[in-house]
Amino acid sequence: MNIEAAVAAQQPLVQRLLDGVAEIGRDPPGITRDAYGRGENQAQALIAGAGRALGLTASTDAGANLSLRWEGSDPSAKPILIGSHLDSVVQGGNFDGAAGVIAGIGAVAALQAAGLRPRAAIEVLALRCEEAVWFGLGLIGSRCMLARLPEGALDLPHARGGKTLAESIAACGGDPAPLRAGTPLRDPAAIGAYLELHIEQAPQLVEAGAPVAVCLANPGNLRHPFIRITGADAHTGLPHRFRRDAALAGADLALELERMWLEEEATGRPMAVTIGRFHTPAGHHSLTMVSGSFELSLDLRAYEAAHLAALEARLAEIVARVAARRGVTIELGARSAAAPGPMDPAITAGLAAAAVRCGLDAPRLNSPGSHDANNFAASGVPTGMLLVRNHNGSHNPDEAMETADLMAAIRVLAEWIAAEG
Amino acid sequence: MNIEAAVAAQQPLVQRLLDGVAEIGRDPPGITRDAYGRGENQAQALIAGAGRALGLTASTDAGANLSLRWEGSDPSAKPILIGSHLDSVVQGGNFDGAAGVIAGIGAVAALQAAGLRPRAAIEVLALRCEEAVWFGLGLIGSRCMLARLPEGALDLPHARGGKTLAESIAACGGDPAPLRAGTPLRDPAAIGAYLELHIEQAPQLVEAGAPVAVCLANPGNLRHPFIRITGADAHTGLPHRFRRDAALAGADLALELERMWLEEEATGRPMAVTIGRFHTPAGHHSLTMVSGSFELSLDLRAYEAAHLAALEARLAEIVARVAARRGVTIELGARSAAAPGPMDPAITAGLAAAAVRCGLDAPRLNSPGSHDANNFAASGVPTGMLLVRNHNGSHNPDEAMETADLMAAIRVLAEWIAAEG
Repeated sequence: MNIEAAVAAQQPLVQRLLDGVAEIGRDPPGITRDAYGRGENQAQALIAGAGRALGLTASTDAGANLSLRWEGSDPSAKPILIGSHLDSVVQGGNFDGAAGVIAGIGAVAALQAAGLRPRAAIEVLALRCEEAVWFGLGLIGSRCMLARLPEGALDLPHARGGKTLAESIAACGGDPAPLRAGTPLRDPAAIGAYLELHIEQAPQLVEAGAPVAVCLANPGNLRHPFIRITGADAHTGLPHRFRRDAALAGADLALELERMWLEEEATGRPMAVTIGRFHTPAGHHSLTMVSGSFELSLDLRAYEAAHLAALEARLAEIVARVAARRGVTIELGARSAAAPGPMDPAITAGLAAAAVRCGLDAPRLNSPGSHDANNFAASGVPTGMLLVRNHNGSHNPDEAMETADLMAAIRVLAEWIAAEG
Repeated sequence: MNIEAAVAAQQPLVQRLLDGVAEIGRDPPGITRDAYGRGENQAQALIAGAGRALGLTASTDAGANLSLRWEGSDPSAKPILIGSHLDSVVQGGNFDGAAGVIAGIGAVAALQAAGLRPRAAIEVLALRCEEAVWFGLGLIGSRCMLARLPEGALDLPHARGGKTLAESIAACGGDPAPLRAGTPLRDPAAIGAYLELHIEQAPQLVEAGAPVAVCLANPGNLRHPFIRITGADAHTGLPHRFRRDAALAGADLALELERMWLEEEATGRPMAVTIGRFHTPAGHHSLTMVSGSFELSLDLRAYEAAHLAALEARLAEIVARVAARRGVTIELGARSAAAPGPMDPAITAGLAAAAVRCGLDAPRLNSPGSHDANNFAASGVPTGMLLVRNHNGSHNPDEAMETADLMAAIRVLAEWIAAEG
């Protein structure tokens, strides 16, 4: 059977797994698979069963990540990892994460059906807790594997029940000890490649009318989750020249940051600014009072470390300017940062060539979101990603990927493994 | 005794009453005198006692407003009303309202001490429930008196305990029946004048270094307490061209309205814009999500009915422009309006002349806030107001009026009554 037919033959398996993880996460109107909890555990068990049925060897590491390994023909070849995650946000969609894990199973099954055995071992990874909603920190499974957990992460409380990350890992069969010691669970230098398939979280592929894109880079970010603006509460009748209105200062700051975004992109430097929380304080604000307090979160993302550093400097200038103009103080507060994840040029070229062999016109796009791939790239593992067309974004119940598009992406993945693995 | 000496002699009485209402309202760190409740009732009783001690006749009307009447020498002369309110906001200051009632007592006591008896009867009024916090509707005592309650007002629930306004009025000895019938409790045409003294709620007098101002007009307002903006929730990675960010639309709307304010004032038309509630929805917003929902309140105030109407038209244009530019819908929702309260030119001139006789350089200012005076002016009663210097605004515990400044204002009031009453 050629690869095209072999991949097509896996559609029932792929659909069964997609439906299976949906059933596990059922939480109308969306899907909830809690990380280091029932939802993620059951989804891992479903995937492990599917892997074992293909003859793969299941194992878990100290971070409770699942690996399903198919030995290659050449024991000296470094293994190729194909991973993504099985957890979701609360009442999100079914495909953010799970589609990538299931694609790994589908690609292996297709290669077996085509009678192709790669030289390198193939490992399908189901990485734990990619979503930041569970511990206020994302990409935890890949951080564990590559010793990239930030200071104090193991003591963060789970959003449901409050167990610490260390306790949660132990409860799922992992072992916090090597994670505390900061030891990588896998030597990055011994990994041949990390590939991840993920639904696109923006509608660029919908707009382009293409099922699959080859990813050029994942964004890094700079985050200030709890920015506070302090002016002075005042009566509605206070003339403008006396006001120190924290809400208008917030509006001013937000539009200055948006202007920065548009200016940067006009000079060819892709990025994004998101101010997700943006509010006068509940329980304090009222119709008849100028608010002296305002709070906001800020997520800045860009695709190059130097660009992120330049944006941080512009942020400081903008904050100083708005504070002076509005007579308020602006405290940026806690800061976190994640490095951008550039994709390996050879893998990117190989995936593009594979797409051509599949008859696909695959755009090359920056990924809108960060993924576990960022950690592998940052640890020096040659990394590549495929993005699959998806409607309505992700992290919401209306997320919508067609299985046919996923099958097209699995075919590109299988073609790449057949050629490069 | 001349008026100057007679007013000065009332300082102990004035201070005793100020301290008395403060003690009644003590609620650290501020003052709370609940309308149609213990705080307002006890303060009314204190003021009634002080009035009776001066030989005034105490009575209450169907709205449970207190009147303390000093008959004039000419029974055919229309009475002069000197009023304000005794309720406060929750943990507000001591002077917003109470200073004006106490000033009426002080002025009568001073005129008596000076041996002057006005031709017209003088009535000191303690009007009920001026603050909007208790029923979501302000100026209730004067609305009752002048049949200016809006439809449904008597069924509004009290913020503490939930009794309706009708029940609250009855519990304080009033009678909802004539209020439901829409009958004025006083014939506006039979009132000679309404005078109100109130602390200034902005620092214009502090800035000017003057203890007293003659008020030119009280603002009317147009309010939309619950404006909703609806765009689309989205992932942080969504490119700008696809976003329908409700928070940024809110920021855009707020700054457009501020620009309108500054433009209007630059052409000599005083007004104010307050956006007191301005927020992504609590329990929905997050660091990693573009918000498709945003909520805000809007209070527009101006000093002429025609100006308010013009502002409402500009608001509609701005809303349409921002909605189109941002790809969102903006629902203005519930609307309420209060008519501006222009002061009577003859009374304003008389008060200014009285200030000159007191050796005071009294600025003429627009009042930052609306007051019971608005209702009297709107009902055709010749109305005047004095504003007293006050630090730190009102509706907060740091509100700070010097008794010496209040005494200066009482002297202007007494001089005016002596000349015009």
